[in-house]
Amino acid sequence: MLKGRSLIDPMDFTVEELEEIFKLADDIIANPKEYMHAAEGKILATLFYEPSTRTRFSFETAMLRLGGQVVGFSEPNSSSVSKGETIADTIRIVSCYADIAAMRHPKEGAPKVASMYSTIPVINAGDGGHQHPTQTLTDLLTMRRTKKRLSNLTIGMCGDLKFGRTVHSLIKAMSRYDNNKIILISPDELKVPEYIKKEILDKNNVEYKEAKRIEDVIDELDVLYMTRVQKERFFNEEDYIRLKDSYILNENKLKSAKDDMIILHPLPRVNEISYEVDNDKRAYYFKQAKNGMYVRMALMAKLMGVL
Amino acid sequence: MLKGRSLIDPMDFTVEELEEIFKLADDIIANPKEYMHAAEGKILATLFYEPSTRTRFSFETAMLRLGGQVVGFSEPNSSSVSKGETIADTIRIVSCYADIAAMRHPKEGAPKVASMYSTIPVINAGDGGHQHPTQTLTDLLTMRRTKKRLSNLTIGMCGDLKFGRTVHSLIKAMSRYDNNKIILISPDELKVPEYIKKEILDKNNVEYKEAKRIEDVIDELDVLYMTRVQKERFFNEEDYIRLKDSYILNENKLKSAKDDMIILHPLPRVNEISYEVDNDKRAYYFKQAKNGMYVRMALMAKLMGVL
Amino acid sequence: MLKGRSLIDPMDFTVEELEEIFKLADDIIANPKEYMHAAEGKILATLFYEPSTRTRFSFETAMLRLGGQVVGFSEPNSSSVSKGETIADTIRIVSCYADIAAMRHPKEGAPKVASMYSTIPVINAGDGGHQHPTQTLTDLLTMRRTKKRLSNLTIGMCGDLKFGRTVHSLIKAMSRYDNNKIILISPDELKVPEYIKKEILDKNNVEYKEAKRIEDVIDELDVLYMTRVQKERFFNEEDYIRLKDSYILNENKLKSAKDDMIILHPLPRVNEISYEVDNDKRAYYFKQAKNGMYVRMALMAKLMGVL
Repeated sequence: MLKGRSLIDPMDFTVEELEEIFKLADDIIANPKEYMHAAEGKILATLFYEPSTRTRFSFETAMLRLGGQVVGFSEPNSSSVSKGETIADTIRIVSCYADIAAMRHPKEGAPKVASMYSTIPVINAGDGGHQHPTQTLTDLLTMRRTKKRLSNLTIGMCGDLKFGRTVHSLIKAMSRYDNNKIILISPDELKVPEYIKKEILDKNNVEYKEAKRIEDVIDELDVLYMTRVQKERFFNEEDYIRLKDSYILNENKLKSAKDDMIILHPLPRVNEISYEVDNDKRAYYFKQAKNGMYVRMALMAKLMGVL
Repeated sequence: MLKGRSLIDPMDFTVEELEEIFKLADDIIANPKEYMHAAEGKILATLFYEPSTRTRFSFETAMLRLGGQVVGFSEPNSSSVSKGETIADTIRIVSCYADIAAMRHPKEGAPKVASMYSTIPVINAGDGGHQHPTQTLTDLLTMRRTKKRLSNLTIGMCGDLKFGRTVHSLIKAMSRYDNNKIILISPDELKVPEYIKKEILDKNNVEYKEAKRIEDVIDELDVLYMTRVQKERFFNEEDYIRLKDSYILNENKLKSAKDDMIILHPLPRVNEISYEVDNDKRAYYFKQAKNGMYVRMALMAKLMGVL
Repeated sequence: MLKGRSLIDPMDFTVEELEEIFKLADDIIANPKEYMHAAEGKILATLFYEPSTRTRFSFETAMLRLGGQVVGFSEPNSSSVSKGETIADTIRIVSCYADIAAMRHPKEGAPKVASMYSTIPVINAGDGGHQHPTQTLTDLLTMRRTKKRLSNLTIGMCGDLKFGRTVHSLIKAMSRYDNNKIILISPDELKVPEYIKKEILDKNNVEYKEAKRIEDVIDELDVLYMTRVQKERFFNEEDYIRLKDSYILNENKLKSAKDDMIILHPLPRVNEISYEVDNDKRAYYFKQAKNGMYVRMALMAKLMGVL
């Protein structure tokens, strides 16, 4: 039963609950007109304490395409934060006005606190470097739709595996399905943290290996998940400049990849995927973004209990 | 006849006109679905020259729940003010696009000026330390719904009574009903101004007294109206620090209060109501916020003439 | 066939295509209720990389009055630009979520680039000092509705003719209709550039002359198009102060104007039209703003292919 619940951590829902959301998303994609009025009379509040146009647009268009409405703010300055109000009070007030809320916050745990005081479902739309569960849902839906399964996949994850929250969440999520193999592609400085290896991969008996170059492992992959090397995660600029170009995907590297491999990326990209790759049929990152809207439609409909 | 009129000052409407709005609000609360399409095709413009998320959300969700739509800005930077346009020209343009406007402005009188040049109803959503009439409507509706009357009430007003515009407006509003008694609870530095006593309370023969401590008078009250001690109203920080904690409501002070006393607060609060009070059945400030949305629905429907 | 196309330059559409839009706008003005649901289920994205409340409101209310919905941002800070994303990627993502986009950008050519990568129609809502095609459509619709023709008109253009993009676009647009005469009224420092005279006016055999004072030519005019002397176009403040008051329209200057001359202005004005003129029946600039909403309704409906 998803009605009335919040989504804070990508692991909040069981595999079966996720399946319920993905099935609804599939049907929305197939028959969008049937869902045009599903959330009529409902209001989403987008509480973005740091800007993220893409994520905000995805939530807002999802709600609008269900026939619902939106209120929101996209920057802390335009909120009441400056008056010293707590997250707890803010969400209690928002609960008076809206039917569901999506919160983005620079501080880890803020959406969790909100959900504790809220009387409406709260969706974590990203809290610092911590969690971004609807991105994980987007990633899973995209793999499920293109590969027709979430098990028996070899998934390469490339780039900043140390700080990248989407990668950590995806590793956790894929560890719940059978027989997946994960290949971690990163420089030494940005390797996946030990606790992910021990507490997630080892504990769930997930096969994995580490690699330093895309070209060494790309021929094995069903899915190549690229991530941005975020400037803000580095302690100094020299490290950033030295490493940022190391993990760039281009057509040349793609030559040895499987014909039906799919390339995913949470976006925005800077230069880690060359523009020439955009026209490759294996490039799925824009379709992935569109899936993000559909999975949010399904998610919100379920949490509001309108479908 | 409220159709086509603006609301700038809380005293703009007669007691009878307010009653018309409150009755509609009661019916909206009882039968919200019947009003879901009342304002279909109508557009509210929220012109917020200073941010106030709560007030803006309240207006916007009110319009959306009537089936109307919203455009707006929530900060002066995103407006045309920087190009040197006058309020008069701005509202004339907005009158071309929208059907009703809610204006928040740091300068006293700005919404009044706007209403003079507007061809659509303008609602003052707060002008500096001056007026905030829909807050007063919210306060009155909440008392009317819980106490079943707006007369024969003993109302305590606590906190910053010197600068607090909501308190001044509420005193004026309650002075129009019979047999109310007002108890003013504040430190000497933040006492209600003399003109309020002379021109409002004395002139209307309203019984009132002043007190320095909540606990000395709380047993007499039907309504306790708490207000924030706003940092921005003080001339220096030491005064603020010395006084801000003086008027904090907690469960201990509530012990001698009547069982059916209601606690109101215009929100946001900082620390003037302890969190432990939130679970007290007399705590009405969040329900009050929700009433704010409903009274704005009724108000806008009346001013637009759709109900 | 306008469906699926973008509007970047005011000259993108043929005279016949413009006529199609204007006829639809006329019908929308006559029968607004018939168009209340025309764009149901469609979403406009307003991508404003610099603030322009008026233009944004015009687009947004246009979409809402067609029964569509809106998402958007009104400042670059709240967008993903800070993460280093290109315009190309941004519009590709927006294409996943929305059905049509209106882009305002401080850099010339940005909306053009966006339209090259977009899978949805892109409307240029102003790119630096370059183009603002929906303003031109607004100007043309207003002349067409008041004068019942777009040919055989004598049009005075007054103010900053050197940098004013709306003036340049209007000159180009009017040069496509027969037998118009253009009178260019400006100080020497702000005269229309030579290429406009040679490549537009001369090449199309448009009769024109230059003047230095409104009062010398106002009696000849069917249309007086006033423009703002924008502070930001000047290299130094003294020049601005010296020139800004030179071209102010007041009731005195209007005495010798034709009875049915119309005064237009793209707005916002600073002081180039005295407030006393607002009550003159020849003042059409606020009606012009309202026409701007209607012409955008017609334009978007055509580009989305819903009408």
